Amino acid sequence: MTPEEFRKQGHRLIDWVADYRAGIAARPVMAPAKPGAIRAQLPKAPPENPEPFETIFADIDRLIAPGISHFQHPRFFGYFPANSDLASVLGDYLSTGLGVIGLSWQSSPALTELEEVMTDWVRQMIGLGDGWHGVIQDTASTSTLVALISAREKISNYALAKDGLQGESAPLIVYVSGHAHSSVDKAATLAGFGAGNIRHVAVDADFAMQPEALRAAIEADRKTGLKPCAIVASVGTTTTTAVDPLQPIGAIAKEFGLWLHVDAAMAGSAMILPECRWMFEGIEAADSLILNPHKWLGAAFDCSTYFVQDPEHLIRVMSTNPSYLQTSVDGAVTNYRDWGIPLGRRFRALKLWFLLRSSGTAALQARLRRDIANARWLAEEVTKTPDWRVLAPIHLQTVCIRHEPSGLQGEALDRHTLAWADAINQSGGAYVTPATLDGRWMVRVSIGAIPTEREDVAALWQLAQDSARS
Amino acid sequence: MTPEEFRKQGHRLIDWVADYRAGIAARPVMAPAKPGAIRAQLPKAPPENPEPFETIFADIDRLIAPGISHFQHPRFFGYFPANSDLASVLGDYLSTGLGVIGLSWQSSPALTELEEVMTDWVRQMIGLGDGWHGVIQDTASTSTLVALISAREKISNYALAKDGLQGESAPLIVYVSGHAHSSVDKAATLAGFGAGNIRHVAVDADFAMQPEALRAAIEADRKTGLKPCAIVASVGTTTTTAVDPLQPIGAIAKEFGLWLHVDAAMAGSAMILPECRWMFEGIEAADSLILNPHKWLGAAFDCSTYFVQDPEHLIRVMSTNPSYLQTSVDGAVTNYRDWGIPLGRRFRALKLWFLLRSSGTAALQARLRRDIANARWLAEEVTKTPDWRVLAPIHLQTVCIRHEPSGLQGEALDRHTLAWADAINQSGGAYVTPATLDGRWMVRVSIGAIPTEREDVAALWQLAQDSARS
Repeated sequence: MTPEEFRKQGHRLIDWVADYRAGIAARPVMAPAKPGAIRAQLPKAPPENPEPFETIFADIDRLIAPGISHFQHPRFFGYFPANSDLASVLGDYLSTGLGVIGLSWQSSPALTELEEVMTDWVRQMIGLGDGWHGVIQDTASTSTLVALISAREKISNYALAKDGLQGESAPLIVYVSGHAHSSVDKAATLAGFGAGNIRHVAVDADFAMQPEALRAAIEADRKTGLKPCAIVASVGTTTTTAVDPLQPIGAIAKEFGLWLHVDAAMAGSAMILPECRWMFEGIEAADSLILNPHKWLGAAFDCSTYFVQDPEHLIRVMSTNPSYLQTSVDGAVTNYRDWGIPLGRRFRALKLWFLLRSSGTAALQARLRRDIANARWLAEEVTKTPDWRVLAPIHLQTVCIRHEPSGLQGEALDRHTLAWADAINQSGGAYVTPATLDGRWMVRVSIGAIPTEREDVAALWQLAQDSARS
Repeated sequence: MTPEEFRKQGHRLIDWVADYRAGIAARPVMAPAKPGAIRAQLPKAPPENPEPFETIFADIDRLIAPGISHFQHPRFFGYFPANSDLASVLGDYLSTGLGVIGLSWQSSPALTELEEVMTDWVRQMIGLGDGWHGVIQDTASTSTLVALISAREKISNYALAKDGLQGESAPLIVYVSGHAHSSVDKAATLAGFGAGNIRHVAVDADFAMQPEALRAAIEADRKTGLKPCAIVASVGTTTTTAVDPLQPIGAIAKEFGLWLHVDAAMAGSAMILPECRWMFEGIEAADSLILNPHKWLGAAFDCSTYFVQDPEHLIRVMSTNPSYLQTSVDGAVTNYRDWGIPLGRRFRALKLWFLLRSSGTAALQARLRRDIANARWLAEEVTKTPDWRVLAPIHLQTVCIRHEPSGLQGEALDRHTLAWADAINQSGGAYVTPATLDGRWMVRVSIGAIPTEREDVAALWQLAQDSARS
């Protein structure tokens, strides 16, 4: 495509996206698609000859827009806030338009140096000490895998340079709360630890890891000759935003010489608020940390910031140095290929740069405070309504609720819960994603889409009550 | 940012990118930046209050554009063709603008189903049988890690569900040619095999893996009680585009029950040309394959297609199923979170959809044929010029050359080679990335940027001669 054709179709695309975002509230939040229905409307084979952009734009309206669930909708309460602020979107547009790849510093110096500065801006915003160094990864799943591989190599004294995990005499063990995200178990199995070497530590009544149970598990493993390796603590679990207590957990990590990784993928954004910083008390004892600016903060997906206290260790684990990537300045610069799994990287720092400059930190703080206030408001409404319960503390923007009409228990209650949640989703009026808590289904109301105001939360609450009663 | 502000700044950004691409030939190909110089011009801390977009756009011109090496430049001959066709760029713009995340099929049905169809279009274009199933990953490094973890779990009968690699009685061994990409060794060490359990199989005079040497290495390991696990074959190595012979290698993999992974990250795009299909003879014996449409084919980075013959195995290794992601249609749909490492995914299929529809396969074939013809032309020019040598067969678009004036050998020759390559890069007139071959530096001329025509290759050749003589 020529630059002039790009100019023409690009303007059209900008208008399409602007109109889409401006009119998003009128769309059903969840895609009303049936499995296979979109696939059935696509040609089975690629075209031999060019198709005009007219046809492509028509297909966006016909197939794509009705076939997605609208994460940027004001009544999107599913999963987690996955905000894609339009300023950040423009930063990503610049990245893709430039079409550069970070392979070495030399391959795009600005890509590397802006990433150094943007991760440092995030570091300051969340109150980390200046001993931390950041890098942008794609997702928390990948960052957690990097963290557990780093832990494995630290405890094994760089077994990867010798016989790998296969040469270890005693199995290495990973400790994590039973409420940690599924990506932690996945990362541990992919890193070769084996599911049998993951310990799910008991949680307290607020679903936070119990330090005494952690200590007991470590001591038990040491007694049987196993080798404790890593602890993964969550600041803001996915299900309830429970906060594992970092101070006692960090002390245990130090005492036994374990790697401490902190997963603050969603909740980490809230550390820009001084009143939320208690959740990070003890963070300096951690070795690695993830926080996804592509969640609540508003950076366009994908943008996961991974912080470590010892970048030299990370580089030793992740580095490769083929001749075609060597340059004369290698000793004087950062080569981010040695800070994670992929060799090539997009110019992701632009997404953060555009977001943080066009918003400023004060406006971001105000938006997050609005969301927390909305969550508290909803929790109060639910609490004072007969037969409704709030099931977990409201630390941030997630409200876990259940409608418990008298006489309804066990699986019948589960069926009722899933039915009213599904009724909300099928109505198109809002979107929620149920989850299990203590073995029973409940509904997570995850507040925090950028356009979500009090009236949207109130509408969801009305819809929930209507759906549960019918 | 409001949709109306986005519309305004978005149009401006489109014009900026169109102008950038239209005027790219006038820029020095390699960024003339000094280490730390860009960082030094950026504020140390994030702004508290919003900055106007005027300032941001001014900084793009002041800091970003002069700070990158221009991969889309007609005289970019570095690394590999990293084409970002402007139609594909628009597909990516739609993805970011929609701001949806693939977490489950339900979270965005069109995202999943378009990815199924697009990977199947690519499958057909490169002549794979219909037993292959594709998924889009970020990069070949990640895909190779997924492949080696899949191999590990196949041979260990799903040790990840038990004690992991730590429970294996005999070390698992990975076989790869010494000319394979560095990401293969990295993937093997990250997957826990250990560097000591990677065998670098000898290559022939054309830098392709020797099947007899592979067989000998496997047999030797079996004799000493080790457990051969996986072979990684390259179709088009990074340094010289050497082609490991898939037919005999596949037969060996079958005979010994090993996983065969094929890395065709760059060269795989050429399989859309019938005259290049000989490189894929024997591919059906492979278990997994990577091809990066974000390289020569023209999809905007990142877009790596990973194909497997047994998706059930991949899903068994990669699946997670937390309650908040479960939906009632899970049995009837593809959940791509179970096909790789990250949980969330961008709507990357749009990049391929826009590219393939707006180009058509015939135009893509014509462009690749142009590049191959340019490579052959350059090789002929070099061959017939005194003191110049072509060092490897021209299978595709990479020409490995050296200027060898009489009397210059060993390290003196290396210094000379690096000096004239650096002179080219510093001149801004073209960009090349030297590499080592048989222990000596040479210059890879990697042809295939979208705007690169014969005159650009001729200009590079003139620049090389001038630089080497001065």
